[in-house]
Amino acid sequence: MPSQSNAIQRLLDEFARLPGIGPKSAQRIVYWLLNSEAADAQRLAETIVEVKRSVRFCERCFNYAEDNLCPVCQAADAAQRDATLLCVVSEPRDITAIERTDEFRGVYHVLGGEISPMDGIGPDELTITELLQRLADTQIREVVLATNPNVEGETTAVYLSRLIKPLGIMTTRLASGLPVGGDLELADTVTLGRAIESRREI
Amino acid sequence: MPSQSNAIQRLLDEFARLPGIGPKSAQRIVYWLLNSEAADAQRLAETIVEVKRSVRFCERCFNYAEDNLCPVCQAADAAQRDATLLCVVSEPRDITAIERTDEFRGVYHVLGGEISPMDGIGPDELTITELLQRLADTQIREVVLATNPNVEGETTAVYLSRLIKPLGIMTTRLASGLPVGGDLELADTVTLGRAIESRREI
Repeated sequence: MPSQSNAIQRLLDEFARLPGIGPKSAQRIVYWLLNSEAADAQRLAETIVEVKRSVRFCERCFNYAEDNLCPVCQAADAAQRDATLLCVVSEPRDITAIERTDEFRGVYHVLGGEISPMDGIGPDELTITELLQRLADTQIREVVLATNPNVEGETTAVYLSRLIKPLGIMTTRLASGLPVGGDLELADTVTLGRAIESRREI
Repeated sequence: MPSQSNAIQRLLDEFARLPGIGPKSAQRIVYWLLNSEAADAQRLAETIVEVKRSVRFCERCFNYAEDNLCPVCQAADAAQRDATLLCVVSEPRDITAIERTDEFRGVYHVLGGEISPMDGIGPDELTITELLQRLADTQIREVVLATNPNVEGETTAVYLSRLIKPLGIMTTRLASGLPVGGDLELADTVTLGRAIESRREI
């Protein structure tokens, strides 16, 4: 016998399907929404629909975009970013992470994943053809391979560097090493080993 | 210079406003929605609107309801629950918690808060008049005061018991004591003290 109205139960189920949201978090959110202004809930609902309606892939770099080009590519066309420095990432969310650092003023290319034979993802499933076309069509002086520092990301970076280096374009990889602010004794051995191998003169 | 589309940023802001959702969780959810089927996102949006449109307060017990009466009161009218056993709670969410235990087959009354002079909430802000009217109109043999085991909840329970006991209705309070499965040495002193005070013969 349910103690809860159907609509509330359905909304609990919908929220519990979202990543990182368990039944307790879903309940907290649903009761918060029930207590909130109708306009607030309406705006949340409308924004969800609006995002799904308006967001597509940038036709140049495959970042999320509302127009043909994403905000980064638009800024590059307006000469507000360095279009000769290209950073290759796996997913649009990686762009958000890099932009937060305020350390990169170039443009991006989103692969749409990483090479992972286990998951059946080979080079053809990624936007590598489009990347090579961009490198052929435009003047790029450096490609930063910013795929993840794990097996799939390293594999993808090695694969790409073999394709790009022969074009005479400088190819770099994000540095691996100790996280800033972390304790040396808490670092895992692979990371610490990499940090020793990549040590720099100061 | 934004690296993200406006619609995505707005949705990130909307999700980050929900309780328990920080910027990182919001990002995870938004990227999940961007990758999900349009129909899934649509259903989430529609369910939010539907809940705000259809959910109101049960006119008898002030639980959330889609009809005039909530599912619990409807079950009681169909003689599927014990209408002579009444549990008084602060909020509708407390009903969900109690129902999960499967230990209570009576009906509820939601106060809509607890007496808290600090927050300007006195007895008149709660549904106490309606509770007393219910006790006068119907045959209730026991009232379980299930307000929270904190200062406001205890104050409210004491206040209510002084009103209800003179009516000749048995008035009980949820037991306080050690959480089941917890370690005695980890219990806070107030809880442990209460557990000793309320010890039971076995």
